[in-house]
Amino acid sequence: MNLKPLHDRVLVQRVEEEEKTKGGIIIPETAKEKPIRGKVKAAGPGKLTDDGKRMEMSVKAGDTIMFNKYAGTEIQIEDEEHLVMREDDILALIEE
Amino acid sequence: MNLKPLHDRVLVQRVEEEEKTKGGIIIPETAKEKPIRGKVKAAGPGKLTDDGKRMEMSVKAGDTIMFNKYAGTEIQIEDEEHLVMREDDILALIEE
Amino acid sequence: MNLKPLHDRVLVQRVEEEEKTKGGIIIPETAKEKPIRGKVKAAGPGKLTDDGKRMEMSVKAGDTIMFNKYAGTEIQIEDEEHLVMREDDILALIEE
Amino acid sequence: MNLKPLHDRVLVQRVEEEEKTKGGIIIPETAKEKPIRGKVKAAGPGKLTDDGKRMEMSVKAGDTIMFNKYAGTEIQIEDEEHLVMREDDILALIEE
Amino acid sequence: MNLKPLHDRVLVQRVEEEEKTKGGIIIPETAKEKPIRGKVKAAGPGKLTDDGKRMEMSVKAGDTIMFNKYAGTEIQIEDEEHLVMREDDILALIEE
Amino acid sequence: MNLKPLHDRVLVQRVEEEEKTKGGIIIPETAKEKPIRGKVKAAGPGKLTDDGKRMEMSVKAGDTIMFNKYAGTEIQIEDEEHLVMREDDILALIEE
Amino acid sequence: MNLKPLHDRVLVQRVEEEEKTKGGIIIPETAKEKPIRGKVKAAGPGKLTDDGKRMEMSVKAGDTIMFNKYAGTEIQIEDEEHLVMREDDILALIEE
Repeated sequence: MNLKPLHDRVLVQRVEEEEKTKGGIIIPETAKEKPIRGKVKAAGPGKLTDDGKRMEMSVKAGDTIMFNKYAGTEIQIEDEEHLVMREDDILALIEE
Repeated sequence: MNLKPLHDRVLVQRVEEEEKTKGGIIIPETAKEKPIRGKVKAAGPGKLTDDGKRMEMSVKAGDTIMFNKYAGTEIQIEDEEHLVMREDDILALIEE
Repeated sequence: MNLKPLHDRVLVQRVEEEEKTKGGIIIPETAKEKPIRGKVKAAGPGKLTDDGKRMEMSVKAGDTIMFNKYAGTEIQIEDEEHLVMREDDILALIEE
Repeated sequence: MNLKPLHDRVLVQRVEEEEKTKGGIIIPETAKEKPIRGKVKAAGPGKLTDDGKRMEMSVKAGDTIMFNKYAGTEIQIEDEEHLVMREDDILALIEE
Repeated sequence: MNLKPLHDRVLVQRVEEEEKTKGGIIIPETAKEKPIRGKVKAAGPGKLTDDGKRMEMSVKAGDTIMFNKYAGTEIQIEDEEHLVMREDDILALIEE
Repeated sequence: MNLKPLHDRVLVQRVEEEEKTKGGIIIPETAKEKPIRGKVKAAGPGKLTDDGKRMEMSVKAGDTIMFNKYAGTEIQIEDEEHLVMREDDILALIEE
Repeated sequence: MNLKPLHDRVLVQRVEEEEKTKGGIIIPETAKEKPIRGKVKAAGPGKLTDDGKRMEMSVKAGDTIMFNKYAGTEIQIEDEEHLVMREDDILALIEE
């Protein structure tokens, strides 16, 4: 089974946060909107403009991203937690 | 009787969710907005731009889609539950 | 007396819903926004764009349509219940 | 004294609703937004677009119209109840 | 001291309403938004469009206007009550 | 230290209101949004349009302006109360 | 690990406010939205327009900025408090 997000939507798989001792990105527990890391599994073709063109996407399958916790709609695929969100809900790309 | 959605609206027939044991897409019961699967029965001609052009639709009759549970307006046609929603309420195409 | 809707407005006459046993479209009683069937009596000339052009209407007098129950403004003409609504409140054309 | 509405505004004089027995347009008492009939006394030059052009008005002085009861701002001119409203608050032209 | 309103703003001096017996414009006491008469003391250069042009103003210093009571921001200049409002808060020009 | 406002933002220093007996501009105590006088200390380069152009600013450093009391964000520079606000929060230029 | 903000987003590291006795910028404790100083660590490529162009960013890595306290989403990188915010949440550049 294959999910193809529409327009500027992106299918994202949650990534477990690393331990604080690893010196990585730590999300404060008290923050109202906690950003979380994920892996892009599939990206839509881009938002359609009035001129009939697709707006270029800034993320692609395989990218690791940071997004707001409450962004998107939750679905599960083969017992893994996934999200379908709009590209605009993605805060940043993570390069390791 | 035949329903032709206007502009960017889509007529969708709900599809029963598969069992979790089949390894398919499982919707968490507690999610606020549960995405649900459906079959596109008819798609409108596309949103009309100010220039008088129709914006291309990304779904067509026969497509299997995932959409937000509370999207659209419910109607019943011959005892089957249907929905009329905007294309923007569709999250992703499902290819099997 | 003759009513000519302005811009993208449409004058609609309600149509009594058919019995469920006729195998037609059944509206669930519990749905929050119940779509209802109607007959277009008159359609406006279309929305005026900034360029001074009229956007093409998708419905015309004589069409049978499905619309949201709470759409539009109710008026009565010769004891028949009518509505003036915007074209965007119309969900679909019904072809029989 | 002469009132010249600005842009897409229209000066409207309320018209007394006809009796139901005359077979005319009857407004249900219970409707939330009751449309009412009026006579256009003066129409503005039209909305100004970014290009410096005026958008064509669809009503002119002398037209009989139907509008939403709560539209516009009430004023009295020589003991007659008038309203200044935007053209978009007008539902339809009435031709008799 | 001289006030020059910015963009589409207008400096307006309130005008005392005439007595009802003079057959002029009477504002109903119970109306939620009472229009009031004023004299334009100064008008801005017009709203700036994205193309760097100014949109033409429809009022100029010296004009008598009718506006919504709660429009604009109150200031006093030499003990006279004035208002700075946007042109769009002006309902109509009054010609006497 | 030097503050350079971004886009259409303006750095403003509050100016003490003159005494009423001086015949200047008096702000009514009871007004909900009290306009206040200030001196422009620095103006941004103007809002960036989609075409990559800057929209012309209507105020510059040195101008005396009138603005809404609750506009902008308060900061203190060398014990003087300053504000960073958008140009659109400025009501008028004061020429003395 | 490297964070690359998307579109018009900016990664900002908070800067400790200087003491009041140093004559710098003092944020009033009682202000509803307290502006705070930060250092830009990374800036996105700019907002994408419908024409497929990027809008020029006004800040770059290394800039010291002033922003609203409640702007953006908090994250921690190597025990330092960071924020991902939109460029529009930045009030001004600070030049020292």
